[in-house]
Amino acid sequence: MNASFAEITPEELELLNRYWNAANYLTVAQIYLQENALLREPLTTDHIKPRLLGHWGTSPGLSLIYVHLNRLIQRTGAQVLYVAGPGHGGPAIVANVYLEGTYSEIYPEVSKDSAGLRRLIRQFSTPGGIPSHVGPQTPGSIHEGGELGYSLAHATGAAMDNPDLIVACVVGDGEAETGPLAASWKAPAFLNPARDGAVIPILHLNGHKISGPTVLGRQSDSEVAALLAAQGWNPLIVSGHEPLVMHAEFAAALEQAYTEVRTIQQQAREHGASGPARWPAIILRTPKGWTGPATVDGVQVEGTFRAHQVPLAGVRESPAHLAQLEAWMRSYEPETLFDRSGRLVPELEALAPRGSLRMGASPFANGGPDVADLILPPIDDYAVHVGIPGSTKHETTRPLGELLRDVYSDTATDPRFRLFCPDETNSNRLGAVFEVTDRALMETAQDGGEKISPDGRVMEVLSEHLCQGWLEGYLLTGRHGLFATYEAFAMVSASMTVQHAKWLQHARELPWRRPVPSLNILLTSTCWRNDHNGFSHQGPGLIDTALSLSGSVVRVYLPPDANTLLAAAQHVLESRNYVNLLVVDKQSHPQYLSIEAARVHAASGASIWEWAGNETASAPTDQQPDEEPAEPDIVLACAGDVPTEETLAAAWLLQRYVPELSVRVVNVMDLLVLPPRDVHPHGLANDAFTRLFTSDRHVVVAWHGYARAFHQLLHGRPSPERFHVRGYTEQGTTTTPFDMVVVNRMSRFHLALEALHRVSGHFDGAASLVEHCERMLRLHHDHIREHLEDLPEIRDWVWTPPDA
Amino acid sequence: MNASFAEITPEELELLNRYWNAANYLTVAQIYLQENALLREPLTTDHIKPRLLGHWGTSPGLSLIYVHLNRLIQRTGAQVLYVAGPGHGGPAIVANVYLEGTYSEIYPEVSKDSAGLRRLIRQFSTPGGIPSHVGPQTPGSIHEGGELGYSLAHATGAAMDNPDLIVACVVGDGEAETGPLAASWKAPAFLNPARDGAVIPILHLNGHKISGPTVLGRQSDSEVAALLAAQGWNPLIVSGHEPLVMHAEFAAALEQAYTEVRTIQQQAREHGASGPARWPAIILRTPKGWTGPATVDGVQVEGTFRAHQVPLAGVRESPAHLAQLEAWMRSYEPETLFDRSGRLVPELEALAPRGSLRMGASPFANGGPDVADLILPPIDDYAVHVGIPGSTKHETTRPLGELLRDVYSDTATDPRFRLFCPDETNSNRLGAVFEVTDRALMETAQDGGEKISPDGRVMEVLSEHLCQGWLEGYLLTGRHGLFATYEAFAMVSASMTVQHAKWLQHARELPWRRPVPSLNILLTSTCWRNDHNGFSHQGPGLIDTALSLSGSVVRVYLPPDANTLLAAAQHVLESRNYVNLLVVDKQSHPQYLSIEAARVHAASGASIWEWAGNETASAPTDQQPDEEPAEPDIVLACAGDVPTEETLAAAWLLQRYVPELSVRVVNVMDLLVLPPRDVHPHGLANDAFTRLFTSDRHVVVAWHGYARAFHQLLHGRPSPERFHVRGYTEQGTTTTPFDMVVVNRMSRFHLALEALHRVSGHFDGAASLVEHCERMLRLHHDHIREHLEDLPEIRDWVWTPPDA
Repeated sequence: MNASFAEITPEELELLNRYWNAANYLTVAQIYLQENALLREPLTTDHIKPRLLGHWGTSPGLSLIYVHLNRLIQRTGAQVLYVAGPGHGGPAIVANVYLEGTYSEIYPEVSKDSAGLRRLIRQFSTPGGIPSHVGPQTPGSIHEGGELGYSLAHATGAAMDNPDLIVACVVGDGEAETGPLAASWKAPAFLNPARDGAVIPILHLNGHKISGPTVLGRQSDSEVAALLAAQGWNPLIVSGHEPLVMHAEFAAALEQAYTEVRTIQQQAREHGASGPARWPAIILRTPKGWTGPATVDGVQVEGTFRAHQVPLAGVRESPAHLAQLEAWMRSYEPETLFDRSGRLVPELEALAPRGSLRMGASPFANGGPDVADLILPPIDDYAVHVGIPGSTKHETTRPLGELLRDVYSDTATDPRFRLFCPDETNSNRLGAVFEVTDRALMETAQDGGEKISPDGRVMEVLSEHLCQGWLEGYLLTGRHGLFATYEAFAMVSASMTVQHAKWLQHARELPWRRPVPSLNILLTSTCWRNDHNGFSHQGPGLIDTALSLSGSVVRVYLPPDANTLLAAAQHVLESRNYVNLLVVDKQSHPQYLSIEAARVHAASGASIWEWAGNETASAPTDQQPDEEPAEPDIVLACAGDVPTEETLAAAWLLQRYVPELSVRVVNVMDLLVLPPRDVHPHGLANDAFTRLFTSDRHVVVAWHGYARAFHQLLHGRPSPERFHVRGYTEQGTTTTPFDMVVVNRMSRFHLALEALHRVSGHFDGAASLVEHCERMLRLHHDHIREHLEDLPEIRDWVWTPPDA
Repeated sequence: MNASFAEITPEELELLNRYWNAANYLTVAQIYLQENALLREPLTTDHIKPRLLGHWGTSPGLSLIYVHLNRLIQRTGAQVLYVAGPGHGGPAIVANVYLEGTYSEIYPEVSKDSAGLRRLIRQFSTPGGIPSHVGPQTPGSIHEGGELGYSLAHATGAAMDNPDLIVACVVGDGEAETGPLAASWKAPAFLNPARDGAVIPILHLNGHKISGPTVLGRQSDSEVAALLAAQGWNPLIVSGHEPLVMHAEFAAALEQAYTEVRTIQQQAREHGASGPARWPAIILRTPKGWTGPATVDGVQVEGTFRAHQVPLAGVRESPAHLAQLEAWMRSYEPETLFDRSGRLVPELEALAPRGSLRMGASPFANGGPDVADLILPPIDDYAVHVGIPGSTKHETTRPLGELLRDVYSDTATDPRFRLFCPDETNSNRLGAVFEVTDRALMETAQDGGEKISPDGRVMEVLSEHLCQGWLEGYLLTGRHGLFATYEAFAMVSASMTVQHAKWLQHARELPWRRPVPSLNILLTSTCWRNDHNGFSHQGPGLIDTALSLSGSVVRVYLPPDANTLLAAAQHVLESRNYVNLLVVDKQSHPQYLSIEAARVHAASGASIWEWAGNETASAPTDQQPDEEPAEPDIVLACAGDVPTEETLAAAWLLQRYVPELSVRVVNVMDLLVLPPRDVHPHGLANDAFTRLFTSDRHVVVAWHGYARAFHQLLHGRPSPERFHVRGYTEQGTTTTPFDMVVVNRMSRFHLALEALHRVSGHFDGAASLVEHCERMLRLHHDHIREHLEDLPEIRDWVWTPPDA
């Protein structure tokens, strides 16, 4: 590990240490000061912020790493992305991005002088200022680090298909206790050195969390090293607390890691990859709150959990604490670091890389160096032939798989699309992608597996966290992708969806941030058709989660069939800055719309399916906008594939038995057309809403998700209490598809009964239909084991006008 | 590893193998057959189920382990709990529970004869029958295994404070890829052999998931062993496919593991625990679909992903497949396993343990051998003095910490309560527990940590998955506990909450399942007061998730202050079979109710706070129920601590400026009193609802969660559109508490303006109040950095009647 140690002169070490001092100084200054940024006068309580916020404990380590990555970049010209797992060490990263000059370029008011320094310290963790974490506001960041666990997955995704990129990923020993992070260590099994970039994890052990020790922090170097080695890494250990010694040792470790990375890559690129590479990983052990107060009021602080946030909390009240703070800050010798104007002295400025090699200015952290859109092949090429609506069945997701296959082909020489899925690509009927690519896996043993190779670009790992985390890293660096998952298990990574939406919501407000491709989540193997897997597999909860997120970033699509799915997929794959849920089952379902009709329906978000109702020829769409539309006796609305089938069958029953009844069927494909426009930008104008749903008719709704969650969409619309919603009500077991709609009271028979219950006035045939529905439900109940649902009487219907 | 190998005679091996054959036979029979259970006649398609469901691939391995655990129990008298991570291998577990006799005792219709066998095979994965996973319907199960990742955490929680219990936990190599499972391997750092039971993980590698290889499955024995060793386990490896050899080797490994466990425990119990124990863990490598069809149609099946579910899928169509199925089933020689009546032959019956030692009959899997309730100390002892409502402030969660401290003390000699928290016990103001116990950690190094020891019973680990998974295991084996977490990060384990609720929902319908203590989740450090940590820490989403779950198991409480929190905590800690969310912030907040009033308020779930409004003395509660209550001009409703404070301040403003206006304040503490009773059993009767909220007055609601999610609660109530709801709208950053309520438009000023906007008629003072509110909001907006919220004018109010 000492091969290049001699290359660092004492002078360079001294410079590196001074640069690090500058970063540490600015970190402390951000946490404490609102004036007197450079301590040009004696410190008084007037200089102290009214509220002290920030995480000092992890910051010196983050800065040490930053300083040495700067050096590596300077020496090698490498493109490096810095992922700060302990993103709550925000002031350290902001300090470094400021010192390298990027911050002032992006935020010119935070200039490289005393006035800028004053702004820098005052804005931190201040109302109206900048957040304390490395959020989207921090240049160079793709990872906020607030909810711990995803740093290494994000880093791994960022490295995929970025062959020249090095992602330095700092993992705190707190974060290392989380599940998603623990799973992320298996990255070497999935990163191909011949075509992917490198991740250099830096496991930063400082021993403590908020108030307790960490598991890894209490283990010996050899134990921690064994843990990384067992997962395929080559661990390099740097441990200590003497700054100059640590600079030398960390520089040597980083150089060794870099050399190993380039050797691995060169080998793989010249001779092909064989088996997983043993990538280097650095274990860095430093005291928590390093260089901060050793003791406060006689109690040890440095090296303990007490250094986690603000180690001297009483500076406004205690003169002794204030004096200790001043002494601490002056120990960095700020007068030697910044010139009279407040600018970093030239010999330190010279240590930072230039231009886009600065980590704060990395194009990889801002939408990627290549911001080309993904151009999809024409979706018409994948359309299914439908004919009479409902007369043909297809596995709805299969054409999407064919589309994705050609996306893979089209991007083969400029790879920027990947599909991520927990081992369900075939199960989800997307297996056409395997005609042109494989599952990625570096382990080469052949043992009955199919379509598996180091060159594959389908990412299958049985972890929703890894699938989504990898994809997020891939997207945030400017590439495109899709996460396809069993609907119920999308809840496993629901918190990641929340956090990513929060990131996008703030990122899109920053003019300097380039839009990134959307996070697209395909929820398939849905609750209604997980009858075979049972109750644990039935849960449409991610929709609930999405509905509460900001309308500026969240979209929820429920295409009723294959062609509408293609239209929706085209939109979401070409979109940017959104979290798009696509909810559709994979099984064989009736198909309704031609590709042309699908495109129109998808564009409108919701429309009347005239062919499914029996209103007169003067249908609303034929009218002048200001003309009063004819109003049906009842509206049947549906959203989602199974609810659509049940609704159409209910409409058919109503028309067959009660021909005098005027029935309208509305299909909602874009769920967020429903709320008022001030809630969601897709919200229909009020007149458009009433044109679909009338202003006062009862509406029987069948929709895919949890029944009552629908009502939050309707508040603010005229007479929301007239909407009678059926959906999933947490009823299910291992049973049949038809029993699923029965036990959740969303079957065609339930919908027809509800409709009859809601219309006023006498209609011939109504009693007969009631009797029919009740009889069929009894029959189902009494003979469920005999799979009576296979009877044509229950199961089959083909759309033909009732009088045909 | 061969120390006791000689003890197994060839005769015993043969018997073990025949018992295993019986289990495998019944597994295949459940998957395929509806008649001819014992193949007493030639197999025909009439005997085949209409739909073939089930997971064969993992089943033979699960049965092998079961058979040998039976042997271990027989030899040692050990109490063993079987946790099947691959719970989708349900038919294997059901077969074993049937063979040991438990199944027929619990479900007498599934008797130990041909008639019972017919029922056994017909019910499996059949509508109206039993699910395909080891759900609550399966005796001996505490873990369904549908959503993968939690087996080892459940097993670890089950072992805590159960000193004599051995939890055998089968982990599939698919599940091993998940984050939660990867994090669970650190159990040795937290299990104390002196007082806890033992977990014996059995990592069952069969190499494949649904359609691809597993990461661990492709690694060498030494690599996998190194991974477990690095995390503190002593790995024992059993690998092969020759049944008799495997029986011998697995028996030896299990015996060695058992001996090591008992040695570790004896050592610790006699001499005290020092450092983490190196517990044994077994790595079992067997072919996927072992003993099933080697090839089908010339394609390899056994040992590949193709054996995952139903390896011969075409038996109804293909005579060749049917013949192959028959040959496969007959290879187990059923005629030698079951007697003429259909009962397992006596020499095999003799292999199973007896009574409650049978794993299917384990009391640990059914509410625990000790079903004593947790009796809390009188909550009055922890009550805070309130005085005039709003005049005093307390950190609301601190008294709860004192209550929990005494629960720890009271159960010290019969430990059956633990607190689980991701390193935030102190931060969440529950630190009083450290007066009587410590954080549990086996690593003994002292390095500035406080209140950490192997004897501690506060479980802190920076993983919501582990906290919740351990707690679930602890609860399902009959003990009590609380998971305290930052509100936003409760979403990390939201899917576990869903799955646990699903488990309870089905378990409570089984008369033989004893109720288990409720899963209690304290959501604190809430969105409204995570102003300092910023946007990523602000998310009340778990409430949304809970609202869609079954009303039979889910409860959501929002106590407005410390005394109501005590009342709610008493209820939830003493309750069973629920998932209870307690939502309350930890910071210093105004206090309102005396402990007596708190108890009354908690019992009612929602009530009018007469002292906060200005209705006449003829208030509703003084009236006869059939008397028409007086109706206020406006109702202000609130749920949650911060919303309550803002609402009270708004009510105060309204009364000070607009004394003619009649204002009612309703506080909702039990959120689920709001929906109609057919949605939730706590739902108020309609007349009780209108007594609180009137039938037609406008209601300005301020509540803790996502604003619009509230509306799903109100559907079905009279005129739901008159409820105007403010709540969290995904607005926030690092800012001040007051700015949080401003940017989410829930401040006292917003609420007062909304109220004025909704009342009809002219009121003196209204214009003046509007001006005041707008001025204060402008002031805040213009001077946010100066923390104007500290001005008494904005921040302070003490409840005194406006004319006092």
